[in-house]
Amino acid sequence: MGKPRRKFWGWGYEGDVLSPDEIRWLESAWAKQFRISQFEVTPTPAVEEIHLRPSRLAIPARLVQICTTEQYERLLHSYGYSFPDSARKFARDFSNPPDVIAYPRNEQDVLALLDWCYDAGAAVIPFGGGTSVVGGVEPPRDYPAVVTIDMKRMNRVLEIDPVSQTALIQAGTPGPELERQLKPGGLTLRFFPQSFEYSTLGGWIATHAGGHFATLHTHIDDVVESLQAVTPIGMMESRRFPASGAGPDPDRLWLGSEGILGIVTQAWVRLVKQPAFRSASTVQFQDFFSAVEAVRAISQAALYPANCRLLDPLEALINAQGDGKHAVLVLAFESADHPVNEWLKRALELCADYGGEYDTQTINQKDAHRSGAAGQWRERFLRMPWLREELTARGIISDTFETAITWERFPTLYTSVKEATERAVKEATGQPGVVSCRLTHIYPDGPAVYFTFDGLGNKSALVDQFWTIKKAASYALLKAGGTITHHHAVGRDHRQWYDQERPEVFATALGAVKSTYDPKWLLNPGVLIDPQRASPAR
Amino acid sequence: MGKPRRKFWGWGYEGDVLSPDEIRWLESAWAKQFRISQFEVTPTPAVEEIHLRPSRLAIPARLVQICTTEQYERLLHSYGYSFPDSARKFARDFSNPPDVIAYPRNEQDVLALLDWCYDAGAAVIPFGGGTSVVGGVEPPRDYPAVVTIDMKRMNRVLEIDPVSQTALIQAGTPGPELERQLKPGGLTLRFFPQSFEYSTLGGWIATHAGGHFATLHTHIDDVVESLQAVTPIGMMESRRFPASGAGPDPDRLWLGSEGILGIVTQAWVRLVKQPAFRSASTVQFQDFFSAVEAVRAISQAALYPANCRLLDPLEALINAQGDGKHAVLVLAFESADHPVNEWLKRALELCADYGGEYDTQTINQKDAHRSGAAGQWRERFLRMPWLREELTARGIISDTFETAITWERFPTLYTSVKEATERAVKEATGQPGVVSCRLTHIYPDGPAVYFTFDGLGNKSALVDQFWTIKKAASYALLKAGGTITHHHAVGRDHRQWYDQERPEVFATALGAVKSTYDPKWLLNPGVLIDPQRASPAR
Repeated sequence: MGKPRRKFWGWGYEGDVLSPDEIRWLESAWAKQFRISQFEVTPTPAVEEIHLRPSRLAIPARLVQICTTEQYERLLHSYGYSFPDSARKFARDFSNPPDVIAYPRNEQDVLALLDWCYDAGAAVIPFGGGTSVVGGVEPPRDYPAVVTIDMKRMNRVLEIDPVSQTALIQAGTPGPELERQLKPGGLTLRFFPQSFEYSTLGGWIATHAGGHFATLHTHIDDVVESLQAVTPIGMMESRRFPASGAGPDPDRLWLGSEGILGIVTQAWVRLVKQPAFRSASTVQFQDFFSAVEAVRAISQAALYPANCRLLDPLEALINAQGDGKHAVLVLAFESADHPVNEWLKRALELCADYGGEYDTQTINQKDAHRSGAAGQWRERFLRMPWLREELTARGIISDTFETAITWERFPTLYTSVKEATERAVKEATGQPGVVSCRLTHIYPDGPAVYFTFDGLGNKSALVDQFWTIKKAASYALLKAGGTITHHHAVGRDHRQWYDQERPEVFATALGAVKSTYDPKWLLNPGVLIDPQRASPAR
Repeated sequence: MGKPRRKFWGWGYEGDVLSPDEIRWLESAWAKQFRISQFEVTPTPAVEEIHLRPSRLAIPARLVQICTTEQYERLLHSYGYSFPDSARKFARDFSNPPDVIAYPRNEQDVLALLDWCYDAGAAVIPFGGGTSVVGGVEPPRDYPAVVTIDMKRMNRVLEIDPVSQTALIQAGTPGPELERQLKPGGLTLRFFPQSFEYSTLGGWIATHAGGHFATLHTHIDDVVESLQAVTPIGMMESRRFPASGAGPDPDRLWLGSEGILGIVTQAWVRLVKQPAFRSASTVQFQDFFSAVEAVRAISQAALYPANCRLLDPLEALINAQGDGKHAVLVLAFESADHPVNEWLKRALELCADYGGEYDTQTINQKDAHRSGAAGQWRERFLRMPWLREELTARGIISDTFETAITWERFPTLYTSVKEATERAVKEATGQPGVVSCRLTHIYPDGPAVYFTFDGLGNKSALVDQFWTIKKAASYALLKAGGTITHHHAVGRDHRQWYDQERPEVFATALGAVKSTYDPKWLLNPGVLIDPQRASPAR
């Protein structure tokens, strides 16, 4: 027995599953929701039962130490964590695995791997935690071979600057490992996406990942001080500055680049001290749109809550935060420096202005985020990825999508996207499903909006059924003026809507940079942009 | 008599000069500083006394309505507002004026102008308020002709969204005009660079301009929601989103692009309500580096003061804020929503931790920014550009430069840059000059640092003397790890240091985009990047 391995079919490590009690409880809730008596449960796939296409690429002697064609590794790197990924895993469909998985130990290894792929004409998939929910790590089909470069061995905090409160961290470092290495210095990145357990700093940078904070530093973008990346034409390394007015920001080209320009290898990031003060409360609103107005008032008052999650009545009910009639706002302030009661008090006054009701006994203690509604929320939030395999095994289509929109267009977006998605669930599955919504991050000019939907699918058609819903929802988002993604990235799955939202003249620029850095267009092909953009028509 | 015209040799409108009393007071202070009895004052140049090279370009009939070759206009558009610009104006050196000044009324005019310049092979200088202090609007010499496109006719607020608190504003709108048009809606951009009176939204965007706020929204970058620009290959228009995770941010390529990619024509920007609450105080420190520690503590405590300007003892003395022995911190909080006493109180506690002393009777009123030390500061700050012509006329070399650096490297940068600049002033002018410093903006990982120097020059050698000092200061900045500019931009004057700080691989990307948007490299040539980058060696 070696170290526990990650499940190639689901979240977590092999053997690490929900308890029978938990499953019984969930199953009965789902059975009730979909009005069926019993689920037929597809067993989880085993490594041995999958027949994989043999690797099409021979590993050169100089790279054998950092490359493998081992079956389990190829299975693990075949997909990300979207619903269609899960459905195909349970359908034992691993028809297009990567040929080789490489584990570079340093920048020189990355350079050597890119050289080799360039010689072989192999497509290159940069891989952090592999937690993409938008097809970001899926091997393309039209290449002679595919090499997935998994950054997990580059997982160290290289340097901590306690004065400027920054650290130089290797790109392959996953959330918990990063926090573990920072802890002795009393500092933390405090960046907690739902994928925290596996996703990596490099992956966060490549995908504009969204973290813990509902305001101000919402994306990893806001905490990157400088970065280093390897491209086929050489190493890119930006300098450490708190800010600079010298030309377009070089780092911004990499934030959200999704592996098409090269591989991020390390970055200096801004840290904070552990919060010592927290104040939190939960506010109930009879009317969802009044609650939205309260949240807008809070965001425009520049109070900067750490948490400001507004659940619509259905979302609140599902997350055991409400009665299904009230919208619920989970509100929390935190600081490493000073008590934040005054901030919370003012935010609650604004809530009251819009009919918000709350217990005057607000939580005001060090572990506010672990108790009360905020704590319940946190627990459910982190538990979510574990449910996927149980849902898929029962043929339940379940997924989320997110956007951002200016305040004045939010009500229309909310109504039209919810309706379009509900209609599509019914059309795809024949039964009404559940579509709920929450605001996850707030900006002075608008919210990030997160939708969750589910429906009982047909196991032989899950992927098609999913796409019927996903397309309807995405078109509705685009039509209402929202972006196709606030923090899930574009990947391969959001391409058709991204192509419509992205300015044409910018696509030309991106194609020009791509052609310069990656003249053979081998880096993560299919993500963000296609080779047709290599020679723009003038 | 028509409308008052801007002085082509200095700040403000013709006839709008310092009072005789003010001049007498300044002259006696300067005479004392440089130990001379009297200044010989060069008279301001007159339009008529300059012999200009005839325009090398004939204006086509279709563009006569929006183009001119008038002498005054060509003089006004020959230079920006740096010290060498001022010295050359007073030396009557207008040897390389633009050939034509164009005033587009809309995007179609801009497109037509770019087409014409492309046909004629003429270089194009985008011009906002013309307040560049880094040679950003200076015509290049190696082109058959130069057309300056002055955006002043595109000066309207097109739309206000009171719900999302944003507005769509034309790029040629200068600060006061923009605020005037926003005022009826009760909103403000609250973006106040020193050049506020003339500089424009488009210029701010093209140069990463820095504004009013010492923390959070320090640059125009932070308030741009979306933008529209005209390039030789077409119009670029990004969508309005509060945030998006869809690919690299298209707007960020334009922020700091300094006119090399095209001309920004309009933008949606985030507004705020007029502040209703203000709390301010002034703190004295015996030791400058202890004051720096206090400022660092404030920035890392996430208190977000609106103003947090730390003057070193000499800078404080010059600005009538101190006795020359104490460092002085001007600290102010503001809010449209809530009292900010608690915030100020905590910031002052942090100051006390580092030996800061302050009057416990802190200012706490609506016009805190207009009274006390903050008010004095504001007045001097806004008066500064007016002094330039009086200084130059007396042969006094006087200029500022700025950088940003992480906290742990700040003490070394401060000492080494101050020393290098003092040494260079002495070397260039034969006499010691004055080099003072202030922190203007603060970030959790470091400050923006602003140096002011002056020295008594020799009128026949002012530009050379200036460059001796500027080069020494800039090399010292680079060596100490600072950026060559925090908010003055790169222009032509900062090129050699920008080229060293910019990652090589990013220069290749910028060259590729430039070649795609502007295949003949006619847009603002010499700024940011040279045509040699058009065909990167692979």
